[in-house]
Amino acid sequence: MKRAGKNKSGLFVLWSLSFVIFSLTSSSFSSLPGDRARENILASWGQRQEFESFLASKRAAIVQEYMEFLAIPNVAADRENMRRNALFIQAMLERRGVRASLIEQEGCPPLVCGELVVPGASKTLLLYAHYDGQPVNPSEWTSPPWKPVLRDGLLEEGGKEIPVSVLEKSSGEEFRLYARSASDDKAPIMAVAAALDFLRSRSLELSINVKFLFEGEEEAGSPHLLGLLEKNKSLLSGHGILLCDGPVHQTRRPQIVFGARGMLDLEMTVYGPKRALHSGHYGNWAPNPAALLANLLATMRDSRGKILIENFYGDVVPLTAEERQAIAEAPQIDALLLQEFELAWSEDQKYRLEQRIMLPAMNIRGLESGHVEEKAANAIPTEAKASVDFRLVPHQTPQKVRELVEKHFLKQGFHIVDSTPDRETRLKHPRLVKLEWGEGYPPARTPMSAPFAKAVVHSLEKVAGPSLIKMPSLGGSIPMRGIMDVLEIDAILLPIVNHDNNQHGPNENLRLQNLWEGIALFSSLFAGLGKHWL
Amino acid sequence: MKRAGKNKSGLFVLWSLSFVIFSLTSSSFSSLPGDRARENILASWGQRQEFESFLASKRAAIVQEYMEFLAIPNVAADRENMRRNALFIQAMLERRGVRASLIEQEGCPPLVCGELVVPGASKTLLLYAHYDGQPVNPSEWTSPPWKPVLRDGLLEEGGKEIPVSVLEKSSGEEFRLYARSASDDKAPIMAVAAALDFLRSRSLELSINVKFLFEGEEEAGSPHLLGLLEKNKSLLSGHGILLCDGPVHQTRRPQIVFGARGMLDLEMTVYGPKRALHSGHYGNWAPNPAALLANLLATMRDSRGKILIENFYGDVVPLTAEERQAIAEAPQIDALLLQEFELAWSEDQKYRLEQRIMLPAMNIRGLESGHVEEKAANAIPTEAKASVDFRLVPHQTPQKVRELVEKHFLKQGFHIVDSTPDRETRLKHPRLVKLEWGEGYPPARTPMSAPFAKAVVHSLEKVAGPSLIKMPSLGGSIPMRGIMDVLEIDAILLPIVNHDNNQHGPNENLRLQNLWEGIALFSSLFAGLGKHWL
Repeated sequence: MKRAGKNKSGLFVLWSLSFVIFSLTSSSFSSLPGDRARENILASWGQRQEFESFLASKRAAIVQEYMEFLAIPNVAADRENMRRNALFIQAMLERRGVRASLIEQEGCPPLVCGELVVPGASKTLLLYAHYDGQPVNPSEWTSPPWKPVLRDGLLEEGGKEIPVSVLEKSSGEEFRLYARSASDDKAPIMAVAAALDFLRSRSLELSINVKFLFEGEEEAGSPHLLGLLEKNKSLLSGHGILLCDGPVHQTRRPQIVFGARGMLDLEMTVYGPKRALHSGHYGNWAPNPAALLANLLATMRDSRGKILIENFYGDVVPLTAEERQAIAEAPQIDALLLQEFELAWSEDQKYRLEQRIMLPAMNIRGLESGHVEEKAANAIPTEAKASVDFRLVPHQTPQKVRELVEKHFLKQGFHIVDSTPDRETRLKHPRLVKLEWGEGYPPARTPMSAPFAKAVVHSLEKVAGPSLIKMPSLGGSIPMRGIMDVLEIDAILLPIVNHDNNQHGPNENLRLQNLWEGIALFSSLFAGLGKHWL
Repeated sequence: MKRAGKNKSGLFVLWSLSFVIFSLTSSSFSSLPGDRARENILASWGQRQEFESFLASKRAAIVQEYMEFLAIPNVAADRENMRRNALFIQAMLERRGVRASLIEQEGCPPLVCGELVVPGASKTLLLYAHYDGQPVNPSEWTSPPWKPVLRDGLLEEGGKEIPVSVLEKSSGEEFRLYARSASDDKAPIMAVAAALDFLRSRSLELSINVKFLFEGEEEAGSPHLLGLLEKNKSLLSGHGILLCDGPVHQTRRPQIVFGARGMLDLEMTVYGPKRALHSGHYGNWAPNPAALLANLLATMRDSRGKILIENFYGDVVPLTAEERQAIAEAPQIDALLLQEFELAWSEDQKYRLEQRIMLPAMNIRGLESGHVEEKAANAIPTEAKASVDFRLVPHQTPQKVRELVEKHFLKQGFHIVDSTPDRETRLKHPRLVKLEWGEGYPPARTPMSAPFAKAVVHSLEKVAGPSLIKMPSLGGSIPMRGIMDVLEIDAILLPIVNHDNNQHGPNENLRLQNLWEGIALFSSLFAGLGKHWL
């Protein structure tokens, strides 16, 4: 989905799982700590042998089918092709015995739904993915974005185009399939379809009912998703939802994520003189809005990330022992990240990244006042602006955070306005700040102790063993809470694709081993989830 | 001169008396506290009768001569016309018995020099003005910039074009002469020439030798001035210099200014991650340069203008009793300015403007980091920049201030670099700041008790009586100290033109009464200065 766009109400939205994880993982780690781990991801899986022989006979066909799917252009605004995609998915599902349908609504691509009812299954799993992709600039691509090309390795490392038939003899672990949405986010759709094939080939029964929910405008901000879910609530009822999007850990180890931080953004404007004044004549007399702003920001947050606003951490729930343990077991990547980002330290070195993002953040994403460098003029600026985004964790809410921040500003002597102040207001209030709040959304975190969470972990560990990384929360924000609330259901994020996939950019690609592992993970979920889901 | 330009060495210069005073006075005061005072400016002058009868017979001729002078285009880069201007001035001076010459140097307009030796005079006064003007955009002018037009009032108030001959019958106090440089800064040149005419017409002797020094590239930054002065030091020797530029007080009362603040500018860059990072994933972990910068700025200056850098005020010399008295006697304009700038307060309300600008200032003239509003992205910026200008007062020096600021940064834990830090430096130092210092220049202030200052005040008060405003210093900065040091001489600023003159903009104009008063002031100086200059 788009990075951070404005929706109709002018609020910034970030419903962008693929993007937020992308940012985390687009690192160019020269040495991948997961290289060795990767060899063993499926090692402890009881079905490994069967799965590999299934793959040996089917992987060319799977890739062939996937290439046909990827050949359909899928920018959300291209309604005709989006409908072709939806029909293609419907047919894919129906070929696997899934009862599939399109939920269509004027003004948006179809929502593709499917249901697989398993006699005797008491639980219903929902699976979410999206079939639209980011808009493309074909001139930047080595091969056209919707003309899928299989290569025997990474383009940057000289990967050469090869025919799909090579897969009849090679497992193609490091092969890459280049096309828009090869990773983001058609891959989970292909993987679940192939997982159904595998189960059928082994005559394995599903242990749960499965409902499929494939959206067509995630990259455009999902403006209709929650409304469609609300309208089709009974059709989409279930006991847990897996949000399948984004890439795996940059160590290449599979990961499962139980939550996401909420967010709330704020545009602040502090006022100085009505017109820019000569800093010689009025410097030290006319209030300087940039100085007012710098001082105000310094009262909000120290330079080590600590938020100084009174009671800001009041609603923050501490991590459970299980969550702390999961973090402790995850690979330590701080040192690697510091090297990559050329940083001498993190904001608070006592804690690792995964601990820090379990706490709220106040990020100053922009400052603007007057001019710097070549454009600098000897003037006292008329105003100074800061753009801030807060990241929230359970049980903070946007509403409460907004109240705390406004209370803080009042305490600092500021008068708060919500639009550009008029002359009377300016003459009345020495310290004036205009606040423009985004709507924001709350954080979400499914407890690792929830029956759904435990069952998912159990099923995935059947395949991935100790490779599975369990993260209590994303640092990034997605409106996971919205889906959970509308469907009254627990949600968990399950990414499958490679981290170095160029998603959103030119030459997006999928590493085939990630597809194979994804198929294995979904197979294990389908076959085992019901047995452990209490 | 230009507002704030870069000279060859990349340093910002502000040799811009006309501009800095302009900024102070371009206010659109609806009610001018000086309207009444104006009536009496020449009231107590002993020569008033004679002067008025001189004017009655000569004002049309003066304006006629001035219009011929103003008709010569005078942008510094237009060398051919600049030479025509110089020759015109030379002729003007020679007609008045002044021995005049051009100091010419490849690459700049001529410096017009003149000398009037008075038998028996022991003191030599230098008079500085500039004959170049700001570049123009003719399409914005009501009449072409170099086709002078006399109007019977302000254009904005319906002033109509009138022939110069009207002045044969009218004193034309509120007439306006429209042309580029009508005010800035050909007016003092015309005024001194006419003052010589007046003295001659009354057979009054000059009491001092006078040397004239008319520059042709002030609006281009005076890049050659100090060098030319240095080269011609003996030719330009004297006992005191009057810098004649800029407008009078916005009350219309004449003013004399004994100094100017120095200046020093600084571009600061604070560093975050090498590339912009997703604020969800890394917010609260990756150092945020905008937060580092805001916190750093807050340690440098509070929001009421007080500079918190240790010992920053250590070299500041308190005002003398005479200087405090002069400020106390000047019109109070704080309330008017607050209304005009739509401010509820000044930085420290205990003190009036004139007191505040006698102290140093730290002005944040620009802030820049990431993006705000529509362009805001959920990213941790890679860097944050602030542009600062310091205003210095006696006896601060740019060198010492720089040392204090750098010491402060070190104390705040910052490592200082002077160019973009490389990977090794970034990985080594958690807090990095790049500092790019301007060269700056020191403040200047001629003591009001200096013999030259006392004599000038005495002579001007002969004409203007209690109307004369005596300001210990401009808030703005001009490299007055440079001229004083090269010529080893005291300097005083004497503006004569109206404050509402549109200088630097389209429709620049001169109010004729200001020209008449200027002629009176120069006449009094020429005739009386030597008698009181001990």
